[in-house]
Amino acid sequence: MQYGFGVDIGGTTVKIALFDITGNLLDKWEIPSVTENEGAAILPDTAASIKEYMRGHDLQAQNIIGIGVGVPGPVDNAGVVNECQNLGWGVFNVRETLEKLTGFPVRVGNDANVAALGECWKGGGSGCANLVMATFGTGVGGGIIIDGKPINGAHGAAGEIGHMVLDARETEYCNCGKRGCTEQYCSATGVVRLAKRYLAAQDCPSSLRALEKITAKDVFDAAKAGDAAAKEILEQVYDYMGQFLGSLCAVIDPEVVVMGGGMSRAGQQLVDGAARYFPRYAFPATKTVRFTLATLGNDAGAVGAFKLVLDELG
Amino acid sequence: MQYGFGVDIGGTTVKIALFDITGNLLDKWEIPSVTENEGAAILPDTAASIKEYMRGHDLQAQNIIGIGVGVPGPVDNAGVVNECQNLGWGVFNVRETLEKLTGFPVRVGNDANVAALGECWKGGGSGCANLVMATFGTGVGGGIIIDGKPINGAHGAAGEIGHMVLDARETEYCNCGKRGCTEQYCSATGVVRLAKRYLAAQDCPSSLRALEKITAKDVFDAAKAGDAAAKEILEQVYDYMGQFLGSLCAVIDPEVVVMGGGMSRAGQQLVDGAARYFPRYAFPATKTVRFTLATLGNDAGAVGAFKLVLDELG
Repeated sequence: MQYGFGVDIGGTTVKIALFDITGNLLDKWEIPSVTENEGAAILPDTAASIKEYMRGHDLQAQNIIGIGVGVPGPVDNAGVVNECQNLGWGVFNVRETLEKLTGFPVRVGNDANVAALGECWKGGGSGCANLVMATFGTGVGGGIIIDGKPINGAHGAAGEIGHMVLDARETEYCNCGKRGCTEQYCSATGVVRLAKRYLAAQDCPSSLRALEKITAKDVFDAAKAGDAAAKEILEQVYDYMGQFLGSLCAVIDPEVVVMGGGMSRAGQQLVDGAARYFPRYAFPATKTVRFTLATLGNDAGAVGAFKLVLDELG
Repeated sequence: MQYGFGVDIGGTTVKIALFDITGNLLDKWEIPSVTENEGAAILPDTAASIKEYMRGHDLQAQNIIGIGVGVPGPVDNAGVVNECQNLGWGVFNVRETLEKLTGFPVRVGNDANVAALGECWKGGGSGCANLVMATFGTGVGGGIIIDGKPINGAHGAAGEIGHMVLDARETEYCNCGKRGCTEQYCSATGVVRLAKRYLAAQDCPSSLRALEKITAKDVFDAAKAGDAAAKEILEQVYDYMGQFLGSLCAVIDPEVVVMGGGMSRAGQQLVDGAARYFPRYAFPATKTVRFTLATLGNDAGAVGAFKLVLDELG
């Protein structure tokens, strides 16, 4: 039997999983990401953890096809990263470094892109060759799969869909330095921002007014409990999501849009809300796209990372 | 020596060109598109014209690698078109039909996608593997090349970038039935619309006011001649183009954006205008994208169509 590893490197932990070559996740664990000293220990720690796991479980090197890795930043096809700020990494070849440390073939992709590949293979978009995954969390990220492969772009920035501009008249700034980005409306932070803006502009009563610090979850909960202001705020969010997804589908025309990230814990409510506004902004031929929730949660990155290596070496 | 044909089927003419396998365009001609009777004669006429040309030029069938075809509508990878309204075509397999008529292998792509492929191979984006071509004409169209291949999308609608939504508050309707599309601001029609809107809202003098019917060319010409209102109208157009291209590059992150279509006859003025506003809307990592004019003009479709067949059969 052949096996492989999928590794999802984040700013806090490195998630490592063992797969058989049909993609069954057999085991998984985490180690801390030691970001001090420009993150120099992260790959040696990962290699040591994999070797230790193999010894402990009597796995032989000749049964391992390779290691797939997702990293939180731009990476080119050769495996060279270009500044992963969360990890302290500058510019170096992750693929070669981890190959030397482990002796196994390594393939590397951007974390959002490999998560999309994971959802495409085993998750919400299973069975699709063309898919967009949109991640609604603290920010808005994404990954695009064309003919079963993630697209990276010329600078590793393909799929930075949270920075499509929805409103050129926006007066507040996005983290990226410009104004009117999708992330300013459709992220957890964006929901809070729109909530504050709405409550400041309107006189209506709302349970949200009693809160010292509003979170996106508060807004979703209040809306579920019938709070009219919270409902109206979410309608604004869904309207922006409809515009965002309408424009995105005019570019990519995917079979499926997989919705993930922390905000997707709001569940079908989120999918239905966005799908309700989508037709207003969608090019007619793209209107039959399917919206679905991500199903792999935190495993998506490791699953997709393993798929990277499987596609080339399996 | 091996040869092949590139065919660009439009609503008025079918453009046919002969290439050697390095992509040199050796000869080209046109025949009328007979759209009566649901366009039933178009492929037989094309096949007859190619055969007649071969007889007249003593070309042997064994020296022909195949025929690439661009069609004005959605087409899947098998060569099945789904309504080319300009031609009167419904749903049928163009590839199989033309293969039976000619005896040569045929590959079929959407016209905007193959034009992008042509510019990627031999035109403004020569040497690039990842490129977006934006066509600013009566409408706004486009084609996207990833790793040297056009992307089609799930419904043949990938690259319908003219229908990305720039302004959700727009009150007038786009041809596609929704409001706020790029095409409403960045096409020749869009320039005229913005000009009329500007002149109606402002009291300023302008040479444009003397015209019975304003065209996009009038606006470009007036701006070049120093007309302040025309200049201001074009600044609006360039601002919308900057937003459009900023959002598009956040999705695709291409090496190059090739700008073509009738409006690109305005030349470097157009490229410089859009490039001036682009940084305001661009995700930082994508800001080094290169903007360039299309160079193949009306030949782009035939060149790209031939490249389709060359890539698979050459």
